Amino acid sequence: MTNDDLSQTLDTSDEWISQRTGIRKRYIASTETTYSMGLAVAQDLLTQSQVAPAALDFIIVATMSPDHLTPSEANRIQGALKANNAYAFSVNVACAGFVYALHLAANLLNGTATCGLVIASETLSRLVDWQDRKTAVLFGDGAGGVLVQRDAQPLPISDLHSFGDNTQQLQVGAGIDSPYFAMDGQAVYQFALREVVASLKRMPPADIYLLHQANARMLQAIARKVHLPLTQVPHNMAEYGNTSAASIPILLHECIADGRITRGQKLLLCGFGGGLAVGSILLTY
Amino acid sequence: MTNDDLSQTLDTSDEWISQRTGIRKRYIASTETTYSMGLAVAQDLLTQSQVAPAALDFIIVATMSPDHLTPSEANRIQGALKANNAYAFSVNVACAGFVYALHLAANLLNGTATCGLVIASETLSRLVDWQDRKTAVLFGDGAGGVLVQRDAQPLPISDLHSFGDNTQQLQVGAGIDSPYFAMDGQAVYQFALREVVASLKRMPPADIYLLHQANARMLQAIARKVHLPLTQVPHNMAEYGNTSAASIPILLHECIADGRITRGQKLLLCGFGGGLAVGSILLTY
Repeated sequence: MTNDDLSQTLDTSDEWISQRTGIRKRYIASTETTYSMGLAVAQDLLTQSQVAPAALDFIIVATMSPDHLTPSEANRIQGALKANNAYAFSVNVACAGFVYALHLAANLLNGTATCGLVIASETLSRLVDWQDRKTAVLFGDGAGGVLVQRDAQPLPISDLHSFGDNTQQLQVGAGIDSPYFAMDGQAVYQFALREVVASLKRMPPADIYLLHQANARMLQAIARKVHLPLTQVPHNMAEYGNTSAASIPILLHECIADGRITRGQKLLLCGFGGGLAVGSILLTY
Repeated sequence: MTNDDLSQTLDTSDEWISQRTGIRKRYIASTETTYSMGLAVAQDLLTQSQVAPAALDFIIVATMSPDHLTPSEANRIQGALKANNAYAFSVNVACAGFVYALHLAANLLNGTATCGLVIASETLSRLVDWQDRKTAVLFGDGAGGVLVQRDAQPLPISDLHSFGDNTQQLQVGAGIDSPYFAMDGQAVYQFALREVVASLKRMPPADIYLLHQANARMLQAIARKVHLPLTQVPHNMAEYGNTSAASIPILLHECIADGRITRGQKLLLCGFGGGLAVGSILLTY
């Protein structure tokens, strides 16, 4: 769905949206679900890694847009894969969910697990009030993920923080009266600028910075404050909009596919959003 | 809400319900929310443990009945406690959620964390079709939890399994058409009898077995199959109904309060339910 498509039903325009957010289009699930997109990612990961489903010890799905309250997408993906040795659970930290799930995966691998999947999948289009031009232009659907395996390295460095006294700045599903996204965009922007910058400054340096794809202007401002050239802070929200937890693994996939990320590089992943929450983790690809 | 209360509006009776389930009453949230009950538990735990909120490294909330899609209850509790060093996230594994959350907490403590809260909180009454006598009689609202701290012991033994090919046997929120609990009670009963027994047999022996409080008859059948005297398998569903993830920590609290559990005892916690999922963990109190 392009910005021009949206301008047919909303008082908005491609120019207004793209200048303020960097978003030009987003994908909207038609028959796809949070489960079906997550499963497709899981199947791709197993095929590409040549890992058998039976080798998986766990499957984590990060999502703020589950299809059901139970079963979780994680359980359904486990069943569909016939990953009969894997336990499965869903995590919800909104847009920071993928980084939190990776942090949990790293700790599980540091314990007794040897292999797992970390998937993020979102159908935010179901949570958007399509009459509200402030939020309808921002979000999109998508999924991504990684297969993780134990190695001899120590736990990756991570930096996770919760700011639950600012919950009102970004809400979804606050009951019958407002089941949709409700956001104080300016407050969330200022929060991200302050707390993402603070988190990045606490972390060691990296070769490439994969930040949650909420807003191109925001990423540019963050990069400026941390003195990073934009070549180290890739973005793709022009193509996908804000896909919440899925934005970082989608970007990771694209950067690996087109060679912007190569083996041995240090990647700093930073998710932030509803909660409010921020999470950074440093990985070596 | 007693069984007699329910029989005023449903074609059921105290005798029918209590003989088949062991349930005589359940609590129904009026002004309480998943968040508010979880917060009350968290505050109690900090007071009783004399731990400062700033000492918490993480707050995990297990729930299948969140108030919002974002912010999570975990984030809101973090904010209300002013637990400014804690990160927070929600986990959903339905009735097995508390055991899975404990497993995650144990792995985090085995990494860099030193102290955290594991809360389970459920307002299942919002997910019940009060016209459906098959499910309306079963569920109740409640919350419980534990404060966990690192010690010198190795990771607790756990046994977590997902059975995502049987998801259809227990669903909640499968869309507009059926937002409520939909359960094939007999199939879930047989599943629990088979897989809970199998999990308990894989685990080391314990002094007391705290099983998810779904059904008194089911627990009796499980105890028989594992050759456990009922004195080692306490139950309290008569008072609370099935409170999903909250049932085990509520029972744990009662057993500690009345002296059935004492320091040094080995506790085997086993949650099971929607997913389908089973999780056992062995703790020393």
